[in-house]
Amino acid sequence: MARRGRIGEFELIARYFAPLAKGFAGARGLKSDNAFIVADGRHDLVVKTDTVVSGVHFLADEKPERIAAKALRVCLSDLAAGGAVPFTYQVALSLNTSWTERWIAGFARGLAADQKLYRVALSGGDTTSTPGPTTISITAFGKVARGKGLGRAGARAGDELWVTGTIGDGALGLLAARGGLDSAALERRYRVPQPRTTLGPLLVGIAHATADVSDGLLADAGHIADASRLGLHIERDRVPLSRAARRGVEAKPALWSSVLGGGDDYELVIAVPPRKRAALHAAARSAGVAVTQIGRFAKGEGVRLTIGGREARVTRKGYVHF
Amino acid sequence: MARRGRIGEFELIARYFAPLAKGFAGARGLKSDNAFIVADGRHDLVVKTDTVVSGVHFLADEKPERIAAKALRVCLSDLAAGGAVPFTYQVALSLNTSWTERWIAGFARGLAADQKLYRVALSGGDTTSTPGPTTISITAFGKVARGKGLGRAGARAGDELWVTGTIGDGALGLLAARGGLDSAALERRYRVPQPRTTLGPLLVGIAHATADVSDGLLADAGHIADASRLGLHIERDRVPLSRAARRGVEAKPALWSSVLGGGDDYELVIAVPPRKRAALHAAARSAGVAVTQIGRFAKGEGVRLTIGGREARVTRKGYVHF
Repeated sequence: MARRGRIGEFELIARYFAPLAKGFAGARGLKSDNAFIVADGRHDLVVKTDTVVSGVHFLADEKPERIAAKALRVCLSDLAAGGAVPFTYQVALSLNTSWTERWIAGFARGLAADQKLYRVALSGGDTTSTPGPTTISITAFGKVARGKGLGRAGARAGDELWVTGTIGDGALGLLAARGGLDSAALERRYRVPQPRTTLGPLLVGIAHATADVSDGLLADAGHIADASRLGLHIERDRVPLSRAARRGVEAKPALWSSVLGGGDDYELVIAVPPRKRAALHAAARSAGVAVTQIGRFAKGEGVRLTIGGREARVTRKGYVHF
Repeated sequence: MARRGRIGEFELIARYFAPLAKGFAGARGLKSDNAFIVADGRHDLVVKTDTVVSGVHFLADEKPERIAAKALRVCLSDLAAGGAVPFTYQVALSLNTSWTERWIAGFARGLAADQKLYRVALSGGDTTSTPGPTTISITAFGKVARGKGLGRAGARAGDELWVTGTIGDGALGLLAARGGLDSAALERRYRVPQPRTTLGPLLVGIAHATADVSDGLLADAGHIADASRLGLHIERDRVPLSRAARRGVEAKPALWSSVLGGGDDYELVIAVPPRKRAALHAAARSAGVAVTQIGRFAKGEGVRLTIGGREARVTRKGYVHF
C-alpha cells in the first residue's frame, strides 16, 4: 500500500501499531505473520468481529481517535454481554487511498487510550488500502470461566428483563450529531460508546441470558426472547431515559420510536431470575452501573409493549401503532 | 443492511452463513453475538487476520466462489507457516450496496467447499453494506502444541532456506489473468491459492523459522532473515519453477523480477538446520509437497542473490541490477 512520499506498510506498522502490541507477548512485536494466544485450560475464549464503515457507521469527518474508540468499543460491548473480560484484539484496517500519516497517528492514539482504559492490547491485523470508504473490522477476544459464557439463549419464563444505564441516547445522539437535535451530551454518547465491560463479567452466575443494545432495545431484547423461545413484555414507562432524552421525547413524542428502536446504546439487556435480583444489584453497585427492570419473559413468543398499562402495537424498529 | 426487495441481514445469516457454522458448537448457530472457543490447555491458538478488497486483491468480476476461497486461503497459508492446524474462522463481509443474493449464495458455496477441504467451520463475523468495493476480512484460528508455534524469527546461521512447490506462479498468473501472458495453469494458480496446510503443522520440531510467500520470495525470505537478525544468500538457479513459469522467463527474462518479487504464491519458505534435512524430506513426502533448497542463512544482514554464481544487485521487489 505504499504511495510515493508516504511511509510503507512495514514502517507504518512499526511506528504506529507495534507500540500497541507491546503488552501482548504473543503478538511477537507484530513482526510475525500470526498472533499466538497461549494455552489456558480454565477459560473459554469469547470472540467478536465487527465492522465499521466511514459514512455508514461513523460520520465521514469524525476524528480518528473517536473512530478507533467506536470500532473497538462496539466489540467490547459484545464481549461484556458474553460475560467475558477482554484482553486482546486484531484490527483489519482498509484505508481510503487518501489516508494521511496524521490520521493514522490519531487512530493509533485513540486505540492506545482505550487499551489503557479497558486493559487490552493489540495482537495483530492487516493494513490495506481501498478506493472505497475507510473500513475497520475488529476482532476482539475475551475470557470467561470454562462453560460459563453468556448469550441470547437461556432466558426462562418468569425471568425479569433488566437494562443498564439509559436507553435511546445513541439514536438521539446520532440525530444531534446530524444537527436534528440540540444536545452535546447525547451527541457525545453516540460518538463514543461506553461498553459495560465491568458489569458484564459480574453477570456470570446471575443472568440467564444477555445481549448488548446495538440494534435497538426492542430488537435486542427481542433477540433474547426469540433465542430463548419465549415471549417478552416490556413496559415503556419503566424504560430509563437520560435527562436529555427525557426532554427530547417530551418535546417530540415521535422520538420514542428512535429511543426504543434506534440502537447504538451499548447498554446491556439482561434476563435475570427474580431470586437473583439482590445479586444483580450488588454486581451493578460494584460496577458503578445503574440497572432498571423494564419487563418480564413469559411462555409464548414476540415482544409486547405497554404504555401506561395500554397495549401498543409495535415493530422492532420502534414504530408504535395504536 | 436491508434494502427493499432483498432479504435482511438476519435472514441472510440464517440462510447462507448459519449452515457453515454447524460444525462448530461455539458458534451457537450464529444466533449469539459472540463465538465461544472452548478451553484447551494443551494448544496455543494461532490467529491471523487478512483483508481482500475487490479490484485490489481480486479482480472485480471474479466469481464469488473463488473470492471466498482466496480470502480464506490466504489466512490458512499464514496459519500453515505458523505450524498450526486450522479449525475455525470469522468473516467480516462489507458488501457493496449492489450485492445480490446470487452473489452471496456463490460466496457461501465457496466457503462450504473449502470448509470440507480444510476441515474448518465458520464461528462468527459481521455483515454490513458499503458504498465502496466489497471487502472481506477473515480472521482464522489454528492450534499448535503449547509453545511450539513457528514464526519469522528463530533462524540460525548455517540454516538452509527451503521452499515448497514452485515460485512465481502467483505473479505470472496475475499477468495471465490480465491478458498479459497466455497460461490457464498460471492464471488458475493466481486465482485459487493452494496453502500448504498439510505440511505446515509437520514442520514443528523441524523448522527454526517459516513464512508464507505472499509478498514475494525475496521479501518474505528477507523477513525471516531480518527477524532472525541474519543475512541470507539465495541462488536463483535453484528456485523451483513450474513448466509454465519456466517457459515464461525463457521467453522474457524480465519476468524474473515478477517471479522473485511478485508474491501471491502461498508457498512456504522454511529455515531448516542441515541435521533436520531428512526429517524435512519425510514431512514433505507425507504431505505430498515438493521441497527445494534455494539458499542459506549466515551471520550478517540483507539478502544476496546470485545468478550462475555471479552476484546480482537486487531489490526485494525483484528488480535485478548487474
